[in-house]
Amino acid sequence: MTAALSAHELIARHRSTLDQALEAIRTRAYWSPHPEHPKAYGEHGSLDAAAGKAAFDALLGSRLDLGQPGTDDWVGGETSPYGLDLGVTYPHADLDVLLPAMKAGQRAWRDAGAEQRAVVCLEILKRVSDRTHEFAHAVMHTSGQAFMMAFQAGGPHAQDRGMEAVAYAYVEQVRTPDNAEWTKPQGKRDPLALTKQFTPVPRGIALVIGCNTFPTWNGYPGLFASLATGNAVLVKPHPRAVLPLALTVRVAREVLAETGFDPNLVALAAERPGEGIAKTLATRPEIRIIDYTGSTEFGDWLEAHARQAQVYTEKAGVNTVVVHSTADYKGMLSNLAFSLSLYSGQMCTTPQNLLVPREGISTDQGPKSYDEVVADLAKSVDGLLGDDARANALLGAIVTPDVKARLEAAAGLGEVALASREITNPDFPGAVVRTPVIVKLDGAKPDDEAAYMSECFGPVSFAVAVDSASDAVELLRRTVREKGAMTVGAYTTDPEVERDVREACLEEAAQLSLNLTGGVYVNQTAAFSDFHGSGGNPAASAALCDGAFVANRFRVVEVRREA
Amino acid sequence: MTAALSAHELIARHRSTLDQALEAIRTRAYWSPHPEHPKAYGEHGSLDAAAGKAAFDALLGSRLDLGQPGTDDWVGGETSPYGLDLGVTYPHADLDVLLPAMKAGQRAWRDAGAEQRAVVCLEILKRVSDRTHEFAHAVMHTSGQAFMMAFQAGGPHAQDRGMEAVAYAYVEQVRTPDNAEWTKPQGKRDPLALTKQFTPVPRGIALVIGCNTFPTWNGYPGLFASLATGNAVLVKPHPRAVLPLALTVRVAREVLAETGFDPNLVALAAERPGEGIAKTLATRPEIRIIDYTGSTEFGDWLEAHARQAQVYTEKAGVNTVVVHSTADYKGMLSNLAFSLSLYSGQMCTTPQNLLVPREGISTDQGPKSYDEVVADLAKSVDGLLGDDARANALLGAIVTPDVKARLEAAAGLGEVALASREITNPDFPGAVVRTPVIVKLDGAKPDDEAAYMSECFGPVSFAVAVDSASDAVELLRRTVREKGAMTVGAYTTDPEVERDVREACLEEAAQLSLNLTGGVYVNQTAAFSDFHGSGGNPAASAALCDGAFVANRFRVVEVRREA
Repeated sequence: MTAALSAHELIARHRSTLDQALEAIRTRAYWSPHPEHPKAYGEHGSLDAAAGKAAFDALLGSRLDLGQPGTDDWVGGETSPYGLDLGVTYPHADLDVLLPAMKAGQRAWRDAGAEQRAVVCLEILKRVSDRTHEFAHAVMHTSGQAFMMAFQAGGPHAQDRGMEAVAYAYVEQVRTPDNAEWTKPQGKRDPLALTKQFTPVPRGIALVIGCNTFPTWNGYPGLFASLATGNAVLVKPHPRAVLPLALTVRVAREVLAETGFDPNLVALAAERPGEGIAKTLATRPEIRIIDYTGSTEFGDWLEAHARQAQVYTEKAGVNTVVVHSTADYKGMLSNLAFSLSLYSGQMCTTPQNLLVPREGISTDQGPKSYDEVVADLAKSVDGLLGDDARANALLGAIVTPDVKARLEAAAGLGEVALASREITNPDFPGAVVRTPVIVKLDGAKPDDEAAYMSECFGPVSFAVAVDSASDAVELLRRTVREKGAMTVGAYTTDPEVERDVREACLEEAAQLSLNLTGGVYVNQTAAFSDFHGSGGNPAASAALCDGAFVANRFRVVEVRREA
Repeated sequence: MTAALSAHELIARHRSTLDQALEAIRTRAYWSPHPEHPKAYGEHGSLDAAAGKAAFDALLGSRLDLGQPGTDDWVGGETSPYGLDLGVTYPHADLDVLLPAMKAGQRAWRDAGAEQRAVVCLEILKRVSDRTHEFAHAVMHTSGQAFMMAFQAGGPHAQDRGMEAVAYAYVEQVRTPDNAEWTKPQGKRDPLALTKQFTPVPRGIALVIGCNTFPTWNGYPGLFASLATGNAVLVKPHPRAVLPLALTVRVAREVLAETGFDPNLVALAAERPGEGIAKTLATRPEIRIIDYTGSTEFGDWLEAHARQAQVYTEKAGVNTVVVHSTADYKGMLSNLAFSLSLYSGQMCTTPQNLLVPREGISTDQGPKSYDEVVADLAKSVDGLLGDDARANALLGAIVTPDVKARLEAAAGLGEVALASREITNPDFPGAVVRTPVIVKLDGAKPDDEAAYMSECFGPVSFAVAVDSASDAVELLRRTVREKGAMTVGAYTTDPEVERDVREACLEEAAQLSLNLTGGVYVNQTAAFSDFHGSGGNPAASAALCDGAFVANRFRVVEVRREA
């Protein structure tokens, strides 16, 4: 390999980080190499806040030329949920030119082996990390996340998830040795002896179909899992959230070229408005792996139609919190209030249905009726979002008119316990900012069931009155089984209820957070430790990240001969 | 757990074997705990040859009552390819009773954890191993394999593959710790601290759809992979090869009961003639995993229709041997002759197309023309099978009339280089025994392509004349890509040809055996070391055995709470 950056140097730079990542996924203790604090950036080649902002501003209205083969047009048209027209244009590809070009470099990438691929991926992540401030603005102005969340979730947390995928991919590939000597005794005769060589081989070209709300966080696991296992990766961003992934592709192509590989191993597939190229791409024979985050409808379509590919989907679910009893009523309320408010509930992990017994719950502050619990939660949300500056920092902006429409319609579904409020963002007057609505529903009313058994993506929660704890567990179980769930929360001081909720989650394969009252929220998962989704209920066919997420992205080919 | 056989005792019995298996799949050096020689049995509780035969004889004409719930009938009707009517009847199940009963014990099986499940599986395999002589007859009289092959492939080799699956399943489940303490620093504030509990949970009921030719060898990997990962397993044998799997189910149920688990975690689904219950079973919502070995047609059907399940298929392929040049002409011929003859070519791994340059090949015995190579191979097969006793011991019996019909039709496809011969089996006059046919085809003739590009399962090989080594490699590549291949062989002394064949195999994901001239054959793979199939070409969606084969049979559910 003739490269500006040698394999030796890359290993020296990143091997110890890789080893730490491998240890982290084994112990699942806290670990991250990517600082969360904006002030941690600005040294060792990373952009500080001002430089990151300047880099983002320089992108506005520009043409992002990635130097991709087969570029037949320039397309764009992203409008920030904060009102800004980004005006960035991206290459539009002639697939019959781009896809073959992406295959040209696969042999060298395959032959480089698992370790070298891993350290190249870590170099990509390092350079993305250095530009975290720039990415933060790009994520903010495509997803509508508030700056701090865009910075953390779109920056270090996304990079963590990418690195986690690299670690899983690496360890999976090295489980089989490169070579083996096999000698089988034959009694008095000479033993049979074979020399065997094992090579991880990629499946082909992997397609990442990005989402609007978490372009990097949800995009990086598939991107890096596929790349680290030897595949080329075509990134098809959501039309409203192209920039963060286009910047990622640019960095990846730079690093690949500098390390002596073909930059076309990673490419972008941007589309014209309404072109809908995901379906075309997903069924191309060259595409052998698909990672998708988005609607259940299109996820189901992919699973049914992209039969030539391994398909990993994160679709929609209905997330439940069972509110049975608590030893920290205030902590519970403020924890839930934060969970419902963060990014205006536009997370696949935001709780939707709060199941509260109609006879009320027991708390450290005495028994609380169903109405009291709901009213106190409403007050807690109101308190959290009472200050407009804090509300803006927490809520971000409503990402699409659809979400706004859903929020407005939700008030008609039942008694409104907390009405949604419009908030002005002084920095971005064009932003649509809304506080969450909480609607009371009755679990026993068939009419209400249609509402709480459907995903209502956005700042909408239902306080569902249930008959009893066991009724709550039964509804939880049915919701996960029929609708899927990315998260489940429960508050209870009763060991039997805890046991029943836990058993429902084990049987329906849902990830459970119990009695969270502090600074960790049910909608947040930490890479290297928490699983995001389970891959075992209808919300997602894969979990981030585990062996199953990487093991089928490559195959092992054996060449054996007599020793 | 109250059980005749405690967890402690099982671990003491089997943990060291499990550890050796774990080491073997890591190094892929030779290892097996299951003796291949029939005389190795008869001590330490295992049946010797006479006792095994007696046990088999006692089964004939009997009702194999497994004590399964929901048994609504007794069905059977196996006829041995050696002519014998087995006369064994098996429980026929009312699925609406049996399937719920299979779920009843899943919680305890799940809660037992990965290690205990592994040692229970190893105890099942140990008891199967002890009855290897009995199984040998059962496999012989269902598959048509000759006794020695039925003994080895149906006994120790199948048990090895089962144990290999247990080892992979175990290591995959313990990659995530049972518990983790997660402490995230928060600057000057108190750290965030969570306690996390991780539990491998099964997907549900797994279905194993067995095949006629290798009921145990192809059935055990899926059976043990699913059981070891916490699933219940329903075994649906091929209607002509029920007995070996029914005996396996009986042993599994005994061991489960003795170890304190619900025997209904493993059950048999035998069917009435023509009932075709596989389709019904495969689409039941309770069935979440399917392992299938058989025709491409039904494998494709399963992949398309059993959408509620993880589907692992081994279908048909067209196996190629590139014959380019050799430094051991005699060794090559005798190695190939054995490969073509073993079990009358009724292995998914038997070579079908021998690609030979039409201008001939270079050998240690001088250049050999295409005609000479084919004639010499024919002579070698004739020599190998010249003695009827040896021929019977190697060929076994033709398993179905279909195979016989295909063999007879093959002679009409081109010039016959070696005609098939009828052989009498003095012990079993009813057996249909045939030597292989070798037919000459021309790779350049479109008419011949229809023959060599279709799988012709049975003792039929095509000596396909090709224009050059690169023509051979191109045809190899196309065959694997379009038709799939379980095995590829190549003979060449030319490093460039070797490189090209190897590259084709890496790119099309096919397992390659190079220049085999001794006692290892392209159609044989050894558990713990060789991969059977690659899971990367149309012949099979999975490889035996690797991480991908086990990783998605369970999911990990996390329960987290504040520390």
